[in-house]
Amino acid sequence: MAGNTFGTLFRVTTAGVSHGPGYVCIIDGCPAGLPLSVDDLLPDLARRRPGQSKLTTQRDEADAPEILSGVFDGKTDGTPIGLLFRNADQRSGDYGDIAEKYRPGHADYTFDARYGFRDYRGGGRSSARETVCRVAAGAVAKKLLARSGVAVLGYVTRVGDVTADIADPTAVTLEQVEASPTRCPVPEAAARMEDLIDSVRKDRDSIGGVCELVATGVPAGLGEPVFDKLKADLGKALLSLPAVTAFEYGAGFAVAGMRGSEHNDVFAPGPPRVHTETNRHGGMLGGISSGEPVVCRVAIKPTSSIPRAQRTVTRAGEPTEILVKGRHDPCLLPRFVPMGEAMVALVLADHLLRTRAARV
Amino acid sequence: MAGNTFGTLFRVTTAGVSHGPGYVCIIDGCPAGLPLSVDDLLPDLARRRPGQSKLTTQRDEADAPEILSGVFDGKTDGTPIGLLFRNADQRSGDYGDIAEKYRPGHADYTFDARYGFRDYRGGGRSSARETVCRVAAGAVAKKLLARSGVAVLGYVTRVGDVTADIADPTAVTLEQVEASPTRCPVPEAAARMEDLIDSVRKDRDSIGGVCELVATGVPAGLGEPVFDKLKADLGKALLSLPAVTAFEYGAGFAVAGMRGSEHNDVFAPGPPRVHTETNRHGGMLGGISSGEPVVCRVAIKPTSSIPRAQRTVTRAGEPTEILVKGRHDPCLLPRFVPMGEAMVALVLADHLLRTRAARV
Amino acid sequence: MAGNTFGTLFRVTTAGVSHGPGYVCIIDGCPAGLPLSVDDLLPDLARRRPGQSKLTTQRDEADAPEILSGVFDGKTDGTPIGLLFRNADQRSGDYGDIAEKYRPGHADYTFDARYGFRDYRGGGRSSARETVCRVAAGAVAKKLLARSGVAVLGYVTRVGDVTADIADPTAVTLEQVEASPTRCPVPEAAARMEDLIDSVRKDRDSIGGVCELVATGVPAGLGEPVFDKLKADLGKALLSLPAVTAFEYGAGFAVAGMRGSEHNDVFAPGPPRVHTETNRHGGMLGGISSGEPVVCRVAIKPTSSIPRAQRTVTRAGEPTEILVKGRHDPCLLPRFVPMGEAMVALVLADHLLRTRAARV
Amino acid sequence: MAGNTFGTLFRVTTAGVSHGPGYVCIIDGCPAGLPLSVDDLLPDLARRRPGQSKLTTQRDEADAPEILSGVFDGKTDGTPIGLLFRNADQRSGDYGDIAEKYRPGHADYTFDARYGFRDYRGGGRSSARETVCRVAAGAVAKKLLARSGVAVLGYVTRVGDVTADIADPTAVTLEQVEASPTRCPVPEAAARMEDLIDSVRKDRDSIGGVCELVATGVPAGLGEPVFDKLKADLGKALLSLPAVTAFEYGAGFAVAGMRGSEHNDVFAPGPPRVHTETNRHGGMLGGISSGEPVVCRVAIKPTSSIPRAQRTVTRAGEPTEILVKGRHDPCLLPRFVPMGEAMVALVLADHLLRTRAARV
Repeated sequence: MAGNTFGTLFRVTTAGVSHGPGYVCIIDGCPAGLPLSVDDLLPDLARRRPGQSKLTTQRDEADAPEILSGVFDGKTDGTPIGLLFRNADQRSGDYGDIAEKYRPGHADYTFDARYGFRDYRGGGRSSARETVCRVAAGAVAKKLLARSGVAVLGYVTRVGDVTADIADPTAVTLEQVEASPTRCPVPEAAARMEDLIDSVRKDRDSIGGVCELVATGVPAGLGEPVFDKLKADLGKALLSLPAVTAFEYGAGFAVAGMRGSEHNDVFAPGPPRVHTETNRHGGMLGGISSGEPVVCRVAIKPTSSIPRAQRTVTRAGEPTEILVKGRHDPCLLPRFVPMGEAMVALVLADHLLRTRAARV
Repeated sequence: MAGNTFGTLFRVTTAGVSHGPGYVCIIDGCPAGLPLSVDDLLPDLARRRPGQSKLTTQRDEADAPEILSGVFDGKTDGTPIGLLFRNADQRSGDYGDIAEKYRPGHADYTFDARYGFRDYRGGGRSSARETVCRVAAGAVAKKLLARSGVAVLGYVTRVGDVTADIADPTAVTLEQVEASPTRCPVPEAAARMEDLIDSVRKDRDSIGGVCELVATGVPAGLGEPVFDKLKADLGKALLSLPAVTAFEYGAGFAVAGMRGSEHNDVFAPGPPRVHTETNRHGGMLGGISSGEPVVCRVAIKPTSSIPRAQRTVTRAGEPTEILVKGRHDPCLLPRFVPMGEAMVALVLADHLLRTRAARV
Repeated sequence: MAGNTFGTLFRVTTAGVSHGPGYVCIIDGCPAGLPLSVDDLLPDLARRRPGQSKLTTQRDEADAPEILSGVFDGKTDGTPIGLLFRNADQRSGDYGDIAEKYRPGHADYTFDARYGFRDYRGGGRSSARETVCRVAAGAVAKKLLARSGVAVLGYVTRVGDVTADIADPTAVTLEQVEASPTRCPVPEAAARMEDLIDSVRKDRDSIGGVCELVATGVPAGLGEPVFDKLKADLGKALLSLPAVTAFEYGAGFAVAGMRGSEHNDVFAPGPPRVHTETNRHGGMLGGISSGEPVVCRVAIKPTSSIPRAQRTVTRAGEPTEILVKGRHDPCLLPRFVPMGEAMVALVLADHLLRTRAARV
Repeated sequence: MAGNTFGTLFRVTTAGVSHGPGYVCIIDGCPAGLPLSVDDLLPDLARRRPGQSKLTTQRDEADAPEILSGVFDGKTDGTPIGLLFRNADQRSGDYGDIAEKYRPGHADYTFDARYGFRDYRGGGRSSARETVCRVAAGAVAKKLLARSGVAVLGYVTRVGDVTADIADPTAVTLEQVEASPTRCPVPEAAARMEDLIDSVRKDRDSIGGVCELVATGVPAGLGEPVFDKLKADLGKALLSLPAVTAFEYGAGFAVAGMRGSEHNDVFAPGPPRVHTETNRHGGMLGGISSGEPVVCRVAIKPTSSIPRAQRTVTRAGEPTEILVKGRHDPCLLPRFVPMGEAMVALVLADHLLRTRAARV
């Protein structure tokens, strides 16, 4: 299959580039009967919008999609939901440098290697603006999940050397997350992250971090054995986002230092239901949800575009320097949060539908 | 789609349980003209076989598959390759305990939650014996990749608190890996890992670790933009293996502490070709291979089956204890290596074929 | 998978309804490097446009799509091609009758049965206007096929009891087809068809017919054995079009009366190449193209919307009558031709790409 | 995707060739909890078995599959069902002629064109013996469908110039079908068909025919709009069978001569439910089941292997003659019936599962 579609029963297909006319997204397989309007998509789109200084900032109309189809009388009608995002800004700027030189850390070279040439304007298809489609589709998935009591929330737990200690992932609220522009729910850590990001920007540099994602209310039994394990699909979903270099769930990489007697979560009886006393397994056993919260984390690399001259080569293979223009976030983490939530929601919505076929 | 198929053009479908008659694997989409015989499959199958004490150990015939189809006159003929693995041991043992009690860390509870009941014999479909299919299919993929100069190798870099320092992942050889039953290519670290695993076993416990996987010779340009990025498909492939709880490539989670100026790999001219001076990007930029070695790592949890009584509940939800019988590896890492290599090879073979359609 | 995507490597996904804001179509998997502009799409779109009285009629701008992505510097760039068709006419007409009553021969009842309700405006998702997406995507596929010397042409061979005798399907030209508004390339038959359609319209009725589709230049070797046979994919493609009730290729249903000695096409040597002396097999043997022209036919039912009162029931299940409003073609055949060609082109383009993976 | 898998949620993958060790079939996605044993598969396998003279003939053990997985305690357990069919007869016969010469009407030439060479023994992958897998999988699908009250039955309506008049397709019983070795349920026509087939065989020739397939009890609402219409999936399923050259449903090709006023089926109220007074639409409107019986027909070409010398060419392209050896059915129709039923059942089972995701 061509690579611009995600999901099996709840499927998202996207097209578009950052400096063309716009993006389209087709969400196919959303069940009929879900109340839906553009207003349901705007909050998460506002959270991913570039240039937010504060959460109260008015959302830029340019990111408001048009719903072209799939909704009738205020509800999804079972037919594919078409979304259109117009690009506000298509000025024919001066792209000469990135047309002829490869930006370090970007996909310029690899697109050329794959296709022979590339749309270099603003990164073309590799631009992170493509995530407007994912975030909007994720908002639809979240609405579907909410009907089954499933909620997805992400937050920043690390920026550079500043880490936030989250005692209980399920206790974090959206309000806590949105209280800081860093989207770190621990105020003291958030303040230090803010300072760090500020100092990195002044350094004409960028910084990486970690985002944790939590899904609560996930019923036990989601996920297919073997290849389409829930953990595998979550990993793919999150790694398909730009700048993500690592994924872990539950104890994650820390399992490498653990013994079985430390790591195993013991089962305990209800009421209200069988559960595990601890959740080192991150809500998935054998790749199938256990009913405990699904908890995972991803690492985001520092923004590749930094306002410094960097060594590189031209398309012709000659050594040169490049100074990447434009304004770029010095840290991707705050805006990553809604993107990560969206991908988790898409995976869970897909498996929720697939699970309906698990028993006669 | 049902979850027992992996890949798009090079596709693997498996069926079978550990205590039934056997496993079948269908490899569909292998191009015609590849020399292939059972002997090509045996070395990697021997590496994953349970009960290896030393690498020179004769392989158990029970793991030798029968090739049912897809090979004619010693070469693949374009039709699906059917493999059959008979299970040697199907004695109707005493399974009463795991039938009625949930083993901590296992998929017993989640299978019940999903399907209403489960084949409890030896873990049924969640048994790691299913990986015989993957390892055999991976051996076919490796042969296909070898024709394009691509090689895949894995090795153990961590067990518990013992880590091996690998200066250059591309310098590790199969001989170094196979020189120790730990599959750690650094002799001193390997010896300490061996001691640690031995002491853990005597403790009636188990231990986790980390496996690194390297693909060399990967041409630039493999991987689809957006959802089917090479990094995303590798992540899914490896996370679909039992006991894998984390995946990272290149600098991985370490990016969280890095600045852009530290992380970006600068491009340098040839000869022989454009390349990056360093490989913190793990051979993938924008999800597409860059021509540098593809390097990734996964964490493997400590074996869930430990020979100790553990608290749990019965199917009826009553508290109880369980003592898991049978002989289990105290550390999964050594046998994981060929499984991890197989999944990397399957992903690369699939993308190698898909890439043929990238240009007119 | 949700049902709004067609193809494996050359994939088309559509969304939209006839009386919403518009349609979007995403063509994913078109190789990079194919020259493409909107002008390439307009001729076939003009051929499917409603309200053509003569072929010289100026095309309605409303059917000209906007290319949102996938084309750079005048060539496809390997990323998905997004197309947007605005609906010119979204007046909130009087839909009361079809909202509450089921039109005979239409999908009103079955959509309600499937989804619980439906977008009744102009047929909603079941409107044949969705084929603008297919025809545009088919035009892209035709351009790709042309590079391999493959051409697809359709024409009308029957309307009601008027049949056209086509001595040699490969001798028919586009000019002959377009010479009559019927798209029947045999002038005498075309004239009689025109008269018949006219008389049917005056009768406030509609009439069915047959369209033949021919692909020339198809290389031998396209099509997968077993399930994805070329004949099977062609059948699915064409039967997925509205109003198609039958598909046959080569001798088709006539094989039922034939003996093997009559039906078998014998092979003959070149030059220039091995071929069959006759083509009763319609260019496919074992589901794989033989190098002979691919020839198939479909039956199109008479337009369901006829300007007569018809008995039916209300959504509440009460007997009633309905008089379907609006202007409808009394015969769908002329406008079907470009739709049928598009689906044949999509299948061939997909298999052309898939076949690149058939040999090492 | 490689072409040896059929279905989306209820998926069948097959491998094997007629003169290799055997066939394997993996049925993935069958819901858990369906009672199943080999005995459920044998009746349909007996109906497709070669060499039946009378229906009471004992089935050849060679066609009894082994269930390798997917069934536990007598019920499907949600994991993939693996089936193994051993080939009884793998004698290394004299294949020289078909190795070097192309049999008219067969896939020898097209396999060579696609893959460069082929397994020529008994037709290799193009052998109709592959349908053992389909018939067995279809038997599982039939059991699943039966739980929803859906039944599938096929029968022969035409052989050569002998046609059987079926007044009411839903009134035909399995007993009537199996009462004649022709599988024509009309005794007088069956007798004439038997005579015709006998005389054709004596002529060293073969003869084609038509099979009608009926599914009763199909709930309204199965099928996806647009590409995965039920009619499209049925068409593909049946056209993927060897020797099928045409497919139609409802009035089929006869619509070409009909007017809308003749063809439209009017809706009538219940009790017990809304229905159409006639069923020219073959149980599908807009590609979605209407609740009326699904009725379709396929044409089967005369057996390509006839015991006569036929002109052809060698692999080297030299003119020659071939006399195909072995015993072949002079008419494929009787044995086709269970194959056709199986494919219809697979499509309906798949859509039954997919439809569970149609509403919130």
